[in-house]
Amino acid sequence: MLLRMSSLFVRTLREDPVDAEVASHRLLVRAGYIRRAAPGIYTWLPLGLRVLRKVEAVVREELDAAGAQEVHFPALLPKEPYEATGRWTEYGPNIFRLQDRKGGDYLLAPTHEELFTLTVKDLYSSYKDLPLTLYQIQTKYRDEARPRAGLIRGREFIMKDAYSFDVDDAGLEGSYQVQRATYQRIFDRLGLDYVIVAATSGAMGGSRSEEFLTPTPIGEDTYVRSAGGYAANVEAVTTPAPPAIPFHDAPAAHVESTPDTPTIETLVAFANEKLPRSDRPWTAADTLKNVVLALVHPTGERELLVVGLPGDREVDPKRLEASVAPAEVETATEADLAARPELVKGYIGPAVLGENAGVDADGVARGVRYLLDPRIVAGTRWITGANEPGRHVVDLVAGRDFLAAGQDGAQNTVEAAEVRAGDEAPDGSGPLELARGIEIGHIFALGRKYAQALGLTVLDQNGKAVVVTMGSYGIGVSRVMAALAEAHHDDAGLAWPAQVAPAHVHVVATGKDPAVLEAAESLATTLSGRGIEVLYDDRVKVSPGVKFADAELLGVPLVVVVGRGLAEGVVEVRPRRTGDGDVGAEQVPVADAPDRILELVDALLVH
Amino acid sequence: MLLRMSSLFVRTLREDPVDAEVASHRLLVRAGYIRRAAPGIYTWLPLGLRVLRKVEAVVREELDAAGAQEVHFPALLPKEPYEATGRWTEYGPNIFRLQDRKGGDYLLAPTHEELFTLTVKDLYSSYKDLPLTLYQIQTKYRDEARPRAGLIRGREFIMKDAYSFDVDDAGLEGSYQVQRATYQRIFDRLGLDYVIVAATSGAMGGSRSEEFLTPTPIGEDTYVRSAGGYAANVEAVTTPAPPAIPFHDAPAAHVESTPDTPTIETLVAFANEKLPRSDRPWTAADTLKNVVLALVHPTGERELLVVGLPGDREVDPKRLEASVAPAEVETATEADLAARPELVKGYIGPAVLGENAGVDADGVARGVRYLLDPRIVAGTRWITGANEPGRHVVDLVAGRDFLAAGQDGAQNTVEAAEVRAGDEAPDGSGPLELARGIEIGHIFALGRKYAQALGLTVLDQNGKAVVVTMGSYGIGVSRVMAALAEAHHDDAGLAWPAQVAPAHVHVVATGKDPAVLEAAESLATTLSGRGIEVLYDDRVKVSPGVKFADAELLGVPLVVVVGRGLAEGVVEVRPRRTGDGDVGAEQVPVADAPDRILELVDALLVH
Repeated sequence: MLLRMSSLFVRTLREDPVDAEVASHRLLVRAGYIRRAAPGIYTWLPLGLRVLRKVEAVVREELDAAGAQEVHFPALLPKEPYEATGRWTEYGPNIFRLQDRKGGDYLLAPTHEELFTLTVKDLYSSYKDLPLTLYQIQTKYRDEARPRAGLIRGREFIMKDAYSFDVDDAGLEGSYQVQRATYQRIFDRLGLDYVIVAATSGAMGGSRSEEFLTPTPIGEDTYVRSAGGYAANVEAVTTPAPPAIPFHDAPAAHVESTPDTPTIETLVAFANEKLPRSDRPWTAADTLKNVVLALVHPTGERELLVVGLPGDREVDPKRLEASVAPAEVETATEADLAARPELVKGYIGPAVLGENAGVDADGVARGVRYLLDPRIVAGTRWITGANEPGRHVVDLVAGRDFLAAGQDGAQNTVEAAEVRAGDEAPDGSGPLELARGIEIGHIFALGRKYAQALGLTVLDQNGKAVVVTMGSYGIGVSRVMAALAEAHHDDAGLAWPAQVAPAHVHVVATGKDPAVLEAAESLATTLSGRGIEVLYDDRVKVSPGVKFADAELLGVPLVVVVGRGLAEGVVEVRPRRTGDGDVGAEQVPVADAPDRILELVDALLVH
Repeated sequence: MLLRMSSLFVRTLREDPVDAEVASHRLLVRAGYIRRAAPGIYTWLPLGLRVLRKVEAVVREELDAAGAQEVHFPALLPKEPYEATGRWTEYGPNIFRLQDRKGGDYLLAPTHEELFTLTVKDLYSSYKDLPLTLYQIQTKYRDEARPRAGLIRGREFIMKDAYSFDVDDAGLEGSYQVQRATYQRIFDRLGLDYVIVAATSGAMGGSRSEEFLTPTPIGEDTYVRSAGGYAANVEAVTTPAPPAIPFHDAPAAHVESTPDTPTIETLVAFANEKLPRSDRPWTAADTLKNVVLALVHPTGERELLVVGLPGDREVDPKRLEASVAPAEVETATEADLAARPELVKGYIGPAVLGENAGVDADGVARGVRYLLDPRIVAGTRWITGANEPGRHVVDLVAGRDFLAAGQDGAQNTVEAAEVRAGDEAPDGSGPLELARGIEIGHIFALGRKYAQALGLTVLDQNGKAVVVTMGSYGIGVSRVMAALAEAHHDDAGLAWPAQVAPAHVHVVATGKDPAVLEAAESLATTLSGRGIEVLYDDRVKVSPGVKFADAELLGVPLVVVVGRGLAEGVVEVRPRRTGDGDVGAEQVPVADAPDRILELVDALLVH
């Protein structure tokens, strides 16, 4: 393969696109790999498409090798199957909906559990047909509220989605583990670092899921790890509830005048001055903070929610959102508060919240919905709002003065508090470290949710109909390309791993001497004839400086310079980035160049 | 490659799907290549996807060889570029429109002229950058009023669309001819018969276009050919206007009572009986028939139209529709007629139509819009309606008593009359023959329409900005697959040409004898190891009859039966369909089988 820069449909840019926040976005646009067509919607130019296809090929090869079978589903789908599983509603504004000329409701599929389930139901009927794993590499759509970071969070994007079908739990576990191992091989081959972390299942449902994250400071996901091996997306971290504390000899709660203390900071300062403890000073951790938020349900319904948590922690909206999915979380507005006058800003306390405010005849709580951090167990003592301006209540005991977290099986706890470095891992395996990453894969043990909703059963050995159990496995193919660009670039441009680079070798002819162009042309043709993918910069009126800058920006792994050295009978062969394997810049005799370059490319491809 | 029937995601059906009208649809569903997901929207199962990918590969190879560069555009696009070219409106209900969560208008692209034009404008600026041809193989959407015939007329389908960009007309002609020749190579390689016919350009616009049609009685398109080399889609046939006839000595028009003659037949019978001609009997060709129709414009506006044509011809709605595009044609309703009481059913004549009914102060015709067949030239004499029940006018002369077709530059002619076998070709190259075909490709010399609308200019040699001229070239990739199925099947099933078949060889193990299964397995593995694509029917509990029926239905070109012959040390090798090349059924010694099969596959692939 031989691409000539003189005719290749590419133009590099010296300036960063104004909307680019991250390196992959900036460099993929500047190097002419992609162009924005609309927010979160991109066009693939020739070099970008070549990289994308190579990523796809690795994914395809490994899935085929693992026995998965490739199919291809439409992107435009009727509402009905998604209604049967509840996702038509649950996705809320996050899917693109449309009507056809006859008024039929359709969507652009964000993921295809429903259709795969129905198609397996259509074709298969016996336990003997299973296990089965199907996949596709296909265009997906999500109407993201905030498309950003180029290919990392788009509205039209390429996904590999796979689905496994098994007759029982052991089968699902087997299929899940095969996919998990396949993902490891895929990301290893692509040269992409990753961690596997426990994750929440979100709108997908299912019993268990794990994410593959590639570590990078610009990642949208935060994950935690402990020295003892615990790893989870921060959304999936469960807070270990401390043991309940006996409170029979706890002092009675008492309301105190605390003028001008609407914040935790002012309250703690006031308390230490006017209500000092004998044993130690008050800290923010002694206060019970009640944060008012609004849940927006997929139906559009807006519901107020108060989250109670220790005053030294903030609410992490992404953790809360994962807990209350498919509802979305917004900050409460003045109008929200005005609608519930019992919520006195800065002085909100449990007495007016949830069931603490009493229940009506049907057992429904009279107060605004109230959820507690799992740390607010029975026996814990708090300073918190007394629901009057300038007044707080001291020695308020959970489980005595208000419903404690999880008390008597109450469903009133929520994972909403931020996770902090140094927090103990849920499994006791040590303190947590936090890091950021991009989600490049997500695997779900779905279980029977979709098969149940859509009636996918098979007959077992005894002729009895059993509901099939499923797994769902996704890789964001276009996002993986962006993650590769994040992981492999420097200030000058991209630096692709050879296995996904748009070409193996970038031949640069410098100068206008016909001998140079002839030698470069001959080398490019020879290499191409020997199976090397060559990008050849044959532009006559472009300076060497511009050509070198373009070579650095485009990021083909091996750069061959045909120019000044020709007088001494050599060409220069250098890696795009020093430190890639054992390759350094070399002066290679012209006659030896094809063999030497072939050797180097082979080494890069194996590496 | 080795696919095992025991685990392959395929189920063949003995019954035709109820909605299947044509063989390709019926057989592709029965053989488990595709499944319907919604009207005009299909899922690709593993075997179907393999065939589709092979068709794509041929298209891609030939376009790459012709110097076209592959890119990939989004399917979901914002309204604005389509509004700039007028197509947002012109497509009327034929495109899928939707809004995103912010209320922005989007469409699912039916074709991508706008985006290609804008992207070239983004990257290029000089005549030196041209010529350029870009293409993509991508999912397209059209909200067809009547999706039908499986993959032949779908709402979500795969197209290859290419676009050429040139600085001048000669350049466009060159790019157009390169694509035309490339299309010939593509269809030749695919083993698909085709004719190239002149065509209309429809919503695409542009100066000239040709269609590639594959001849088949189930085709939606009708085309004509003359012995002298004329070939055109029937929609593109222009009627040669006869010379005008002097009419200074023609008798005056006279109204006659013609009771109960609301049809051409009754009118001709009446005239021959009561108003006999001296020279010859009246025929239908002497009557001027005025057919009332309704145009539905893309804006939804409904407009009445009367077409005047010789009484021996019918209106061909597809020809009329091509003439009035982007409006659609419907038959007039009772309500339409009631709104224009001057239209007396069965007795409509020119006097109340168009400008013949007079014009108002602004020069606008008072009568219903009236368009004439080009044969109604000045001097032609007609019997036609007198606009009263039971009355016709005789000796009504075009150009004297009403505005003749094209008279004095009047824009009142229309190509709406059916084309009949035996009609003279427009270029005088002899009488026309009619046949039907499926449109598999369409090439357009677009000219400057899109570049002009979207501001795509480049600087020429003199530094002057010139508007770029474009071509547009489409192949319906998924439709080509259906056309191949139409061309290559028999009553028992599909019979793929080897170059697009899902596998080269179908190895059928018959019987449960372990020796049979062992020999078949060994042969299948050997063949696969030597680069042959093998579909191996390894099912143990399935009868030979069912396996043979499946082999015939699936249509892999070479069938190898491992079974009874094994006792004599032979396997049977037979073509799926006799007559494919020189291959007949052969008994081949087991040891020779791999070599012989390799030979036969090579011969089929070259063929």
